[in-house]
Amino acid sequence: MGIDKRELYPVIMAGGSGTRFWPLSRHLFPKQLLKIGGGEHTLIQQTMRRVRGCAPASRVLISTNAAQAEQIRVQLAEWKDELKDGFVLEPEGRNTAPAIALAALEVMRRDPDGVMLVVPADHVVTGQREFQAAVSLATQLAKAGHLVTFGIKPIRPETGYGYIKPNGRAIVGKLGKLKGYRVQKFVEKPNATKAAQYLKAGNYYWNSGMFVWKAATILEEIHRHQPALGKVMDRIGQLLATGAPKQTIDEVYRWATSVSIDNGVMELSSRAAVVPVSFRWSDVGSWGSLDEVAAKDKSGNVMSGRVVDFESTRSIVYADRRVVATIGLEDMVVVDTPDATLVCPKSRAQDVKKVVEILKQQKAPEHLEHLTVHRPWGSYTILEEGAGFKVKRVTVNPGGRLSLQLHHKRSEHWVVIAGTARVTRGEEVFDLQVGQSTAIPVETKHRLENPGKETLHIIEVQNGPYLGEDDIVRFKDDYGRTPKQ
Amino acid sequence: MGIDKRELYPVIMAGGSGTRFWPLSRHLFPKQLLKIGGGEHTLIQQTMRRVRGCAPASRVLISTNAAQAEQIRVQLAEWKDELKDGFVLEPEGRNTAPAIALAALEVMRRDPDGVMLVVPADHVVTGQREFQAAVSLATQLAKAGHLVTFGIKPIRPETGYGYIKPNGRAIVGKLGKLKGYRVQKFVEKPNATKAAQYLKAGNYYWNSGMFVWKAATILEEIHRHQPALGKVMDRIGQLLATGAPKQTIDEVYRWATSVSIDNGVMELSSRAAVVPVSFRWSDVGSWGSLDEVAAKDKSGNVMSGRVVDFESTRSIVYADRRVVATIGLEDMVVVDTPDATLVCPKSRAQDVKKVVEILKQQKAPEHLEHLTVHRPWGSYTILEEGAGFKVKRVTVNPGGRLSLQLHHKRSEHWVVIAGTARVTRGEEVFDLQVGQSTAIPVETKHRLENPGKETLHIIEVQNGPYLGEDDIVRFKDDYGRTPKQ
Repeated sequence: MGIDKRELYPVIMAGGSGTRFWPLSRHLFPKQLLKIGGGEHTLIQQTMRRVRGCAPASRVLISTNAAQAEQIRVQLAEWKDELKDGFVLEPEGRNTAPAIALAALEVMRRDPDGVMLVVPADHVVTGQREFQAAVSLATQLAKAGHLVTFGIKPIRPETGYGYIKPNGRAIVGKLGKLKGYRVQKFVEKPNATKAAQYLKAGNYYWNSGMFVWKAATILEEIHRHQPALGKVMDRIGQLLATGAPKQTIDEVYRWATSVSIDNGVMELSSRAAVVPVSFRWSDVGSWGSLDEVAAKDKSGNVMSGRVVDFESTRSIVYADRRVVATIGLEDMVVVDTPDATLVCPKSRAQDVKKVVEILKQQKAPEHLEHLTVHRPWGSYTILEEGAGFKVKRVTVNPGGRLSLQLHHKRSEHWVVIAGTARVTRGEEVFDLQVGQSTAIPVETKHRLENPGKETLHIIEVQNGPYLGEDDIVRFKDDYGRTPKQ
Repeated sequence: MGIDKRELYPVIMAGGSGTRFWPLSRHLFPKQLLKIGGGEHTLIQQTMRRVRGCAPASRVLISTNAAQAEQIRVQLAEWKDELKDGFVLEPEGRNTAPAIALAALEVMRRDPDGVMLVVPADHVVTGQREFQAAVSLATQLAKAGHLVTFGIKPIRPETGYGYIKPNGRAIVGKLGKLKGYRVQKFVEKPNATKAAQYLKAGNYYWNSGMFVWKAATILEEIHRHQPALGKVMDRIGQLLATGAPKQTIDEVYRWATSVSIDNGVMELSSRAAVVPVSFRWSDVGSWGSLDEVAAKDKSGNVMSGRVVDFESTRSIVYADRRVVATIGLEDMVVVDTPDATLVCPKSRAQDVKKVVEILKQQKAPEHLEHLTVHRPWGSYTILEEGAGFKVKRVTVNPGGRLSLQLHHKRSEHWVVIAGTARVTRGEEVFDLQVGQSTAIPVETKHRLENPGKETLHIIEVQNGPYLGEDDIVRFKDDYGRTPKQ
């Protein structure tokens, strides 16, 4: 047993709309970036650790979009060097089939025989050894030309997942106790009666959304079952090979069919196989499903932060810096964040997406991102904003440095509250200690840097008629964020 | 009809622990300071307006304590001059009988024949004309030596109030359709069965906690039924007459019996009378009772602020600056404030006081006051605080001026975000416009003033090892807050 690490390419699917765990998730801060269910690592950090058991970090690809990539790079900074070329950016969201095809092209470029292990960034898997064993068997099957999925043994009559029925007489491989089968059929999300039957029957499995296949095989099957998409991907492959400009490739990608890999390929392919697995899995698809993965108190509550509770049962209460007081709740969800609060029964948690839709229509910032935004050099938190002003706390990691920049529309005041700030202002460079301050006039080149060993915190007060993040002209940047000439 | 305004002294009982409407109310910001049920005036402002129909503002007494008096003065600033000597401050909370006795002494000092109209600051009354008519009749009865209460016609079998049964054959006065009766009996909060019987019987009334009596009569009855308290009040009367120092009076007040005027006097007195009234009344005793006074949407919800709701019914949702999203709530209370959030079923709203008790034990600031604190010159809001720093937005009304002060332990930075600031710093005086800033070193006398016609807003960043509000030495103050020499 053991995985042949030379040919396996983990592909972490890290898109996500950030709606289901709102207000903790946001459009620019989706579920994969959260520490769901406690523990020290976020879901994408857990996922990275999991696939690192199957392949070196330099072989991992992250499939995401440009807007979300920056936060992911911050969270995976531990593998900064290995992942430098590992980001496969979708020009725009076109569902999973085009995104997977794009990753497959990159794998083909590196190794025409490469095998892909496709895993969502935001699922919880318990049982690393069982996971690796399943990947080993699946890799064998993939090399034989199968499109392999992992089947999860149902533990309740779930109507929110698709099911897979193996063909019990068509075993295509074995490894220890694990067996791989041809798929007899895929079943779309069933009604409650059907789901109960499947649970009782014992030979239906949940479709986990994890796949193992050769890059070449999935591209072939995309051509077979989604020929239009196949053609688009062929053209993108040619453009990538000839070093065409990004804008051209983006333009072609717009023509890709928006379809999921399940509906568009797996359910139509004769090469689908399934490995029923023994590890525990949850897609943590909503606040209501947090129960599956989080530690509960003796009344069945999942509570974190400054919660003062009296006699609540089976409820989920998330507090951040504020006090949240709860009394006599039953099966409720309460999520309190610095700029938005959610209260609903667990049974209605699926409707959170409707709330996010409303906020999006209102162009309310609360659907988009948090008041605290992480950057490669540290983070900033908006403390207050109003007509003509904005107040931020800016945190700079030791050795971190913001870009050399200027603003056309705003002046800034910086007061150091912890650490030492090295300030570039016009032609001057000087250091500020705790309690010292400086003012940066409009149109003045400036830079903030932490030359010390302790984290730098400053309070920044912005004044001006326009305070958008896009009023920034970058001249030099340590993180490749200057516009290419 | 009409009230003899020459002899009526309204006494607004404005203590209150601030627990029942937490987190909107706080220990230093009790319910009377809130705009309960919408409308432009807070409960104490409504109460002031109500009693102003019965007597001039200069005759109004406010019974409260020193800690709460400042906020009340801010809210009643419209009658600043008339109320200058109108605050009767309890040295410490000893329940209603001693507080009323203290107010009675002040009325006696002004007019030995004075009649008191005692009203809680935090009730809602609808029907000003009916209120004034009831006060007129009650004043007649008071002059004849009665202790008069107002009886509210029950509209539900409430178990949270005391009831009053008039002696139907003992009419002591009439005015138009209104009649006054001797009280046959007071009934303590009944059980549900009794409450239903009282409602059905039709001749039981809710005790509203409003009273009319001569100051001399209530002091006599206190002597009769609470002789120990009577002696304490006699001694305080003598001390007040001889201009004894506050500390001495406070010391004597500590010996006053802690008893309510209902239990300690009214229920024992043979002089009690009741006027059944026709105005609408609510004591808005908890979040659950907000229903009685607030406008509801067609699903029976009371919602205010940035609420995004789907399909909730009969719920109370209060949002402040944050978005609050609610889905499918039934009979719930959600109150979201800048530093604390409450979620509970309406039926458990009485237990909010338990939450406040816990926070008090934890010495958590959230039981004590809000992040925004009102002052005679404007207000300040704490935006963030942490080790060694605090960030505030300070708002100064046109013409307003903070005290000339210094701090031993902290430096301050001020950045103007709106209006014009006149700054005194050591021996200098200078003006700052929007986008300008200054730094105030430790141990430097300073003063902030708004010389303009527009409200001044500054961001203040404090640095130092100790940032408590009590690190302040005041030299000059427009609001009498310099320590007496």
